[in-house]
Amino acid sequence: MATLLHLDSSLFPREGSVSRDVAASFRSAWEEQHPGGTVIYRDLAADPLPHLEAAGAAAGFADPASHTPEQAAAFALRDELARELEQADAVLIGAPMYNYTISSTLKAWLDQVILMGRTAGTETPSAAGTPAVVVASRGGGYGPGTPRAGFEFAQSYLAKVLGEVMGLDVEFVIPELTLAPHTPGMESLIDNARASRTQAHEAAEAHGKALAARLAAAA
Amino acid sequence: MATLLHLDSSLFPREGSVSRDVAASFRSAWEEQHPGGTVIYRDLAADPLPHLEAAGAAAGFADPASHTPEQAAAFALRDELARELEQADAVLIGAPMYNYTISSTLKAWLDQVILMGRTAGTETPSAAGTPAVVVASRGGGYGPGTPRAGFEFAQSYLAKVLGEVMGLDVEFVIPELTLAPHTPGMESLIDNARASRTQAHEAAEAHGKALAARLAAAA
Repeated sequence: MATLLHLDSSLFPREGSVSRDVAASFRSAWEEQHPGGTVIYRDLAADPLPHLEAAGAAAGFADPASHTPEQAAAFALRDELARELEQADAVLIGAPMYNYTISSTLKAWLDQVILMGRTAGTETPSAAGTPAVVVASRGGGYGPGTPRAGFEFAQSYLAKVLGEVMGLDVEFVIPELTLAPHTPGMESLIDNARASRTQAHEAAEAHGKALAARLAAAA
Repeated sequence: MATLLHLDSSLFPREGSVSRDVAASFRSAWEEQHPGGTVIYRDLAADPLPHLEAAGAAAGFADPASHTPEQAAAFALRDELARELEQADAVLIGAPMYNYTISSTLKAWLDQVILMGRTAGTETPSAAGTPAVVVASRGGGYGPGTPRAGFEFAQSYLAKVLGEVMGLDVEFVIPELTLAPHTPGMESLIDNARASRTQAHEAAEAHGKALAARLAAAA
């Protein structure tokens, strides 16, 4: 039974969110080939996780047998999030750039789910090798060589933390210039924005199909 | 009347937090020279701000006269945070690195306080030129040339967003290796950690004195 972990973190509902819409293309393609599969879905904007607090942080470094009641309660959430990640055959993350990096809600998920010696900080983290597709939409253009390349702290950060720290096998799908249709002064970029979005949908759909097929072949 | 805006974002209380402790050195030095001054203090960990939501985001781009009641309520907080920043003569931020970047609570503050056309996105943002000292503590060593330099997304990000985007005049104070005293395998780095912390206290105190003196001279 195929399991997909799908996180969205856009502030806006799907009508106003390129990352949600492109992620949905991946999910449709995946579900088509795994109609009986499980999707664990978290809308981090609509139902935000609590920020990591001292009790949960301390609990992550302590033997569960020694947890205080407060630590045990905080750790239960961290454990639940880690299990969701560990049981996933693939991970899909909608990660729009806000103020040049990821949303505070996605950072809250990372701070909760990253457990040293389990999901990170060990030679073989518990979700190592799991394929992950990140829809890292962004309002402008931040590709290498562009004037704003030095302001890109979303894709670059997630590549390190999801890829090198947690060991996921990460691919990025990046619809750019998403602000163009709504922003005075960006009119000349609307066609490029449309093209980028179309390409992103195609790439997301292709990743969804390919991952589903890879999983089916391995089963 | 001198006004200091002081934000802390460590998960831990001062006894267990290098960033809180070093920031306190700045604040003491500042307060000594401005005994009748005002300190606006926000403990973002103890009293976290809400994540930016759709209503607040939309409100930031709309004419206040056209705000729905929900937008007006969400915007009131953003306006309050922007005013706190705008009335500050200096800004002090405790910004420990968690999972290679800033805390989710500090990102939530940034997402709320950054208002396009006011605190950012204009030639002269409303707090441009305000001196800011950021205590960017980190558990390991991430300086240029170290093996982990490519994992540094806290100082590098804040330099861009506080400095270039919001126009603050930012200085960093960086106690490193803060995990050494508590982490098996880092014993050989404990002396370096102590030295880094001592230097950070001295630098923070010196910044506090210098900024207070600069302000007094300008008054």
